[in-house]
Amino acid sequence: MTSMDTQTRFRTGAVDMTHGGGGRAMTELIKDLFHRHLKNPILDQGHDAAVFDAPPGRLVMSTDAHVISPLFFPGGDIGALSVHGTLNDIAMAGAKPLSLTASFILEEGFPLADLERIVMSMARTAREAGVPVVSGDTKVVEKGKGDGVFITTAGVGVLPEGVTISPAAAKPGQAVLLSGTIGDHGVAILSKRENLEFETELRSDSAALHGLVADMIAAVPGIAVLRDPTRGGLATALNEIAHASGAGVLLQEEAIPVAPDVEGACELLGLDPLYVANEGKLVCICEAADAGRLLEVMRSHPLGRQAARIGEIVEDPDHMVIMQTAFGGARVVDWLSGEQLPRIC
Amino acid sequence: MTSMDTQTRFRTGAVDMTHGGGGRAMTELIKDLFHRHLKNPILDQGHDAAVFDAPPGRLVMSTDAHVISPLFFPGGDIGALSVHGTLNDIAMAGAKPLSLTASFILEEGFPLADLERIVMSMARTAREAGVPVVSGDTKVVEKGKGDGVFITTAGVGVLPEGVTISPAAAKPGQAVLLSGTIGDHGVAILSKRENLEFETELRSDSAALHGLVADMIAAVPGIAVLRDPTRGGLATALNEIAHASGAGVLLQEEAIPVAPDVEGACELLGLDPLYVANEGKLVCICEAADAGRLLEVMRSHPLGRQAARIGEIVEDPDHMVIMQTAFGGARVVDWLSGEQLPRIC
Repeated sequence: MTSMDTQTRFRTGAVDMTHGGGGRAMTELIKDLFHRHLKNPILDQGHDAAVFDAPPGRLVMSTDAHVISPLFFPGGDIGALSVHGTLNDIAMAGAKPLSLTASFILEEGFPLADLERIVMSMARTAREAGVPVVSGDTKVVEKGKGDGVFITTAGVGVLPEGVTISPAAAKPGQAVLLSGTIGDHGVAILSKRENLEFETELRSDSAALHGLVADMIAAVPGIAVLRDPTRGGLATALNEIAHASGAGVLLQEEAIPVAPDVEGACELLGLDPLYVANEGKLVCICEAADAGRLLEVMRSHPLGRQAARIGEIVEDPDHMVIMQTAFGGARVVDWLSGEQLPRIC
Repeated sequence: MTSMDTQTRFRTGAVDMTHGGGGRAMTELIKDLFHRHLKNPILDQGHDAAVFDAPPGRLVMSTDAHVISPLFFPGGDIGALSVHGTLNDIAMAGAKPLSLTASFILEEGFPLADLERIVMSMARTAREAGVPVVSGDTKVVEKGKGDGVFITTAGVGVLPEGVTISPAAAKPGQAVLLSGTIGDHGVAILSKRENLEFETELRSDSAALHGLVADMIAAVPGIAVLRDPTRGGLATALNEIAHASGAGVLLQEEAIPVAPDVEGACELLGLDPLYVANEGKLVCICEAADAGRLLEVMRSHPLGRQAARIGEIVEDPDHMVIMQTAFGGARVVDWLSGEQLPRIC
């Protein structure tokens, strides 16, 4: 098959069951689409497993399945998101990501042009992050047994000597920092789903946070907790930290940055931004004495310009998250029992 | 919620959208079902990413999505298969697997009792293999947007010093060994799908091969190629090796072990066992002088009892796979263009 044929097929064709069958059609899809865009020396080994060198240190490993709907949205797509999601999980342990794997579950009939667009976005995102996709897998399911494309990524990273970051490490007296505005991702997805129009386009904040984290750790190696407030939003992330550490969290509502458009959209949609997913933000808990230095480092990074100190860790035998409101009251920021937004990541 | 409540719910309940929402329902599912069964010190860290020590050496990483239908079959289920699949990819690079991740995409309405059965099988399989599931993820999609459960596993392993196993390393004169009968997995799945009855139950050969591989490498560190002939079967695995190495493969039909029941089922179903998937077999290519020693080691392992020398690597500018038939003729064992059996793994 010539390169021209391949290009035509990708422009007009669709995924069919043969693309998952282990035969020539699958091999061509892998070579002409996945390997062509994701190209790197490790992936090019062409083995089912990838072999690569790792610097010494403890390893960190994580995985995320991505089932977001719609697949393309302002500020990103499932390809970029699936790279960011796993890189961020690794970064939240304080580790430097080394490599990624990507598994695709394709629905029969899915346009190959859309698949190529997603893989190109994934490739660009991985390249910008400096972390190669070293191995992958493709499966195809019959029409009506999937939903376009699901992507599961896994990643491995290495933890610098002396770094121990864990949600259990939060202690009373420590400061709670947030790297920027909340709610952008979830509101962008929902606006796209509901075809809502706002004055400015609401964009997902989907981004890879490991560069920001590296700067933060270089400045303050003793950071206690890092967490990316994804599904369930800031409220859920803080409840998980409270639960894991046995402490409480006291937030200052006025200090939590929310973009005006996101705030407006949340009011319209009946959402509380505290529970809306983010894909490019982090919560950091550190000694109060380190908070100023860390905020400075965060604000000098493009992904932390609006970083803010939003509260503190407090003694609380019930390990609750409490928020002092702008009007001087206090409210419990509880777990959600179910979901606010399905298929958000 | 008491333990009794949880047990009742798992026995009678079903997955709903709240199980993927990031709130309390998801946290309970993860704690009461996934963590309870998959329990190990690394997973118990409760972080989005798992941290663990690794021995020195090059790392090996691989991933596999599993979309098999039916989910339960003679000789296994999607839980065990998803552990075996990724462990085997790592083993085929000659590496010792260290840890696994598991991502679940659940369809709304899927019975929690079935999910628990799958997770218990996965846990048992990982325990028997001595490789922990260290991190995971759960997503839920609406009814009709998935198919019960899809599981994507990824794994990381470490490569012993001096081992370089690659499909490109096959060279003319080397021997082709096979660890046992072919076709068992694919025929078991298809028989279950079609409700076919045979005199003896056809069972999948799904198994973890890293123990067998460790024995083989200890005996002959200079093994050239290892490959598990999964989707597309032995024929596809050998064509991939021929393509990667630029050599040809000459097979002896009589030497390839096929269980009589599998042969009978293949005739009935119109399948060629050479193209039927295996999930517990490996092809090994080694120097002819090492073949006897390796066969001895393989046959003394429970997963290699029927190991056989099935052919040799030959010079062939067209890198084809040719089989000398039992009747003295020769046939080209070509790539399949599409799929013989969809959703086989």
